[in-house]
Amino acid sequence: MTADRTQPPGFLEVLTIVEAACQPLPTERVSLANAAGRVLRETITAPEDQPAFPRSAVDGVAIRLDDSSENFVIVDDIRAGDWRSRQLQLGEAVRISTGGALPGEGLQVVMIEDVEFSANRCHVKERGTETHIRVQGEDVRRGEILLASGSVLTAGAISLLAGIGHTEPLITRQPEIIHFTTGDELVPARGKPGPGQIRDSNTPLVAAFFQQLGITVIHHHLPENPEQTKAELVGHSAEINAADILIFSGGASVGAHDHTSRLLEMLGFELKIRGTRLRPGKPLLFASSGKHLAFGLPGNPLAHFVGLLGFVRAAIAKLTGTTAPGLQPASLSSPLQAGGNPRETLWPASLSLRDGMLSAEPLRWSNSGDLATLARSNGLILLAPGTDLLNQSTRINVLPCAFFP
Amino acid sequence: MTADRTQPPGFLEVLTIVEAACQPLPTERVSLANAAGRVLRETITAPEDQPAFPRSAVDGVAIRLDDSSENFVIVDDIRAGDWRSRQLQLGEAVRISTGGALPGEGLQVVMIEDVEFSANRCHVKERGTETHIRVQGEDVRRGEILLASGSVLTAGAISLLAGIGHTEPLITRQPEIIHFTTGDELVPARGKPGPGQIRDSNTPLVAAFFQQLGITVIHHHLPENPEQTKAELVGHSAEINAADILIFSGGASVGAHDHTSRLLEMLGFELKIRGTRLRPGKPLLFASSGKHLAFGLPGNPLAHFVGLLGFVRAAIAKLTGTTAPGLQPASLSSPLQAGGNPRETLWPASLSLRDGMLSAEPLRWSNSGDLATLARSNGLILLAPGTDLLNQSTRINVLPCAFFP
Repeated sequence: MTADRTQPPGFLEVLTIVEAACQPLPTERVSLANAAGRVLRETITAPEDQPAFPRSAVDGVAIRLDDSSENFVIVDDIRAGDWRSRQLQLGEAVRISTGGALPGEGLQVVMIEDVEFSANRCHVKERGTETHIRVQGEDVRRGEILLASGSVLTAGAISLLAGIGHTEPLITRQPEIIHFTTGDELVPARGKPGPGQIRDSNTPLVAAFFQQLGITVIHHHLPENPEQTKAELVGHSAEINAADILIFSGGASVGAHDHTSRLLEMLGFELKIRGTRLRPGKPLLFASSGKHLAFGLPGNPLAHFVGLLGFVRAAIAKLTGTTAPGLQPASLSSPLQAGGNPRETLWPASLSLRDGMLSAEPLRWSNSGDLATLARSNGLILLAPGTDLLNQSTRINVLPCAFFP
Repeated sequence: MTADRTQPPGFLEVLTIVEAACQPLPTERVSLANAAGRVLRETITAPEDQPAFPRSAVDGVAIRLDDSSENFVIVDDIRAGDWRSRQLQLGEAVRISTGGALPGEGLQVVMIEDVEFSANRCHVKERGTETHIRVQGEDVRRGEILLASGSVLTAGAISLLAGIGHTEPLITRQPEIIHFTTGDELVPARGKPGPGQIRDSNTPLVAAFFQQLGITVIHHHLPENPEQTKAELVGHSAEINAADILIFSGGASVGAHDHTSRLLEMLGFELKIRGTRLRPGKPLLFASSGKHLAFGLPGNPLAHFVGLLGFVRAAIAKLTGTTAPGLQPASLSSPLQAGGNPRETLWPASLSLRDGMLSAEPLRWSNSGDLATLARSNGLILLAPGTDLLNQSTRINVLPCAFFP
């Protein structure tokens, strides 16, 4: 099997190919307890005015606006939750708590700090023009759009949904993801590597990456022997058919022992990307079969990071119905000697906000297996082919791990 | 009960008082599957060189550096995971996969793209000076510090820990948090509010806020009747004694029905803050009892947001042993008419990165119960007392919900 390598795609081309293959996942309704961080797939409008009735904005006493008295008889005590209508007379006051429903119209609330109490009477020491009343519909009018489809549900959005009694929002169901590792040189992280072996650092990387997106991943290790692999895949076929994304770690380069592309073809996937111009990440594979997607990530951890942050995250955003964060302009916080490599490069970086500016500190990395650098990276700098020395404060584009909101 | 209100504290004073009461929580060891997002509490050094042996950086053939032949006999095939030592002779090549252990010293790997194969022979078409070998210790030397205590464990850090076989990192145990709601006017979000009642939007807000920090909160509703409340608290006393933070929603203003401060005193807490200069958030309470902390958050949702984002998050950071994100400079993306209010204000805002700059769009809000504004807020703008009109592009300080890393 040979692939056309005359002009493998660069970062933006890969992104375009990946996104074009993504179709929004089906929706489901979940309880508010399970909705934080999920993508809304319906428009939320206000079912009623907010507040639904005039409420006191403070603790105090309600009196008539047209009442110029300074001393009042307290005729009632309305807590938040009470509801007693009453026509107040001149010289009459109703004690009222924050959130309490006003007993009628034409009233003002005087804050408790400006009132002296004695038994069932009170004296108003000071009285401004502010009514301290939240009028009906002050926040939101019935029918007004509150949340747009495609919003990510923040804690504040969850609070709003609770406030309007919309307790089962329609959201995108979570993607089902299976992660396959390949490579006979891998031993589990708890194991002791023999000569020539290394611990599997990609399974925990992939699991933690998705965990931070709120997604639990199924993991299987595949033997390199083709017959055994075939048997394993047949054993998992129900799971595979239900999966939205398959991720294969390792086995994506052109060597004789690399068989991810063969596996994908065996599973009926059509290869859309057989290698890129990127460094790291040159042997990346991407394939689709109907609505199902598959990524073959080169085995090295930094190449994994490039694949996950650059493309898998964009696919998740597209599948769930929201917008991927994408490239952000930033400023280099120290010079970067990029070495003039002819390939487009995603350079590991430590991003931070410095004086309100997104700032990128390029990290030393020797190769795509550099775990120490991976552990310090929270973003990637996109460098054009041939980039050599960049001075401090140069404007560059970065892919951040964290983003707003 | 009256509190000294001659000079209630402002934002930075409240923050200082809260942080001074926080002591780091005990540590625990967890598996890597449970470590993402947690705070590391030990220094991680490299237990061995990385890579631990010379490995091929590419798929190719290994030949002697001093061998000027163009045609070679392939004498072995080393996959990643294999380990076979061998003294190569002139004219001999070993086929080798990415990650494979070099069979000896003084070698070079020629990339597979530059080699033509036929049966057990190969022809090297092109050969540069690069060895394509990852030498032992190239990434990390034994004993080098890899992760500092206080780091938040990112997916990359988890991958590093797996790679060095450190599978049970020492981290801060999660804070135990109990959330009490008070207020007889509240009905659950699923309920139908009667006259004067409102749906409880704070319980889902608090739950989702902590969920995004990876923390599960226990929730109880307390009746307003003091005897019933007392009985409830006695019933939960084991839980309360084990809690690191108690959060009381509502009941924090000075009105007659507000009893959070009495509850706190009954529970043996010492009140450190009985109200602030902040808007919203004036009736905020903060108390401590030994290592236990308690917050009384004013019942209105925006005031809750101020309390959670401004102070509770800082307390969580301090308890878990990391640094709170804190105030960040930003630029106003549109003019802000703040109205010249005499109180220090935390103004709801929608933050985003615009052309690499942290940018704040001030949101319209009518009062601290404004759920629609809360749902759109992902940060707060700190405004000095008396702030009136601020022009577009004014530099202000903000508290963002999201932050780096």
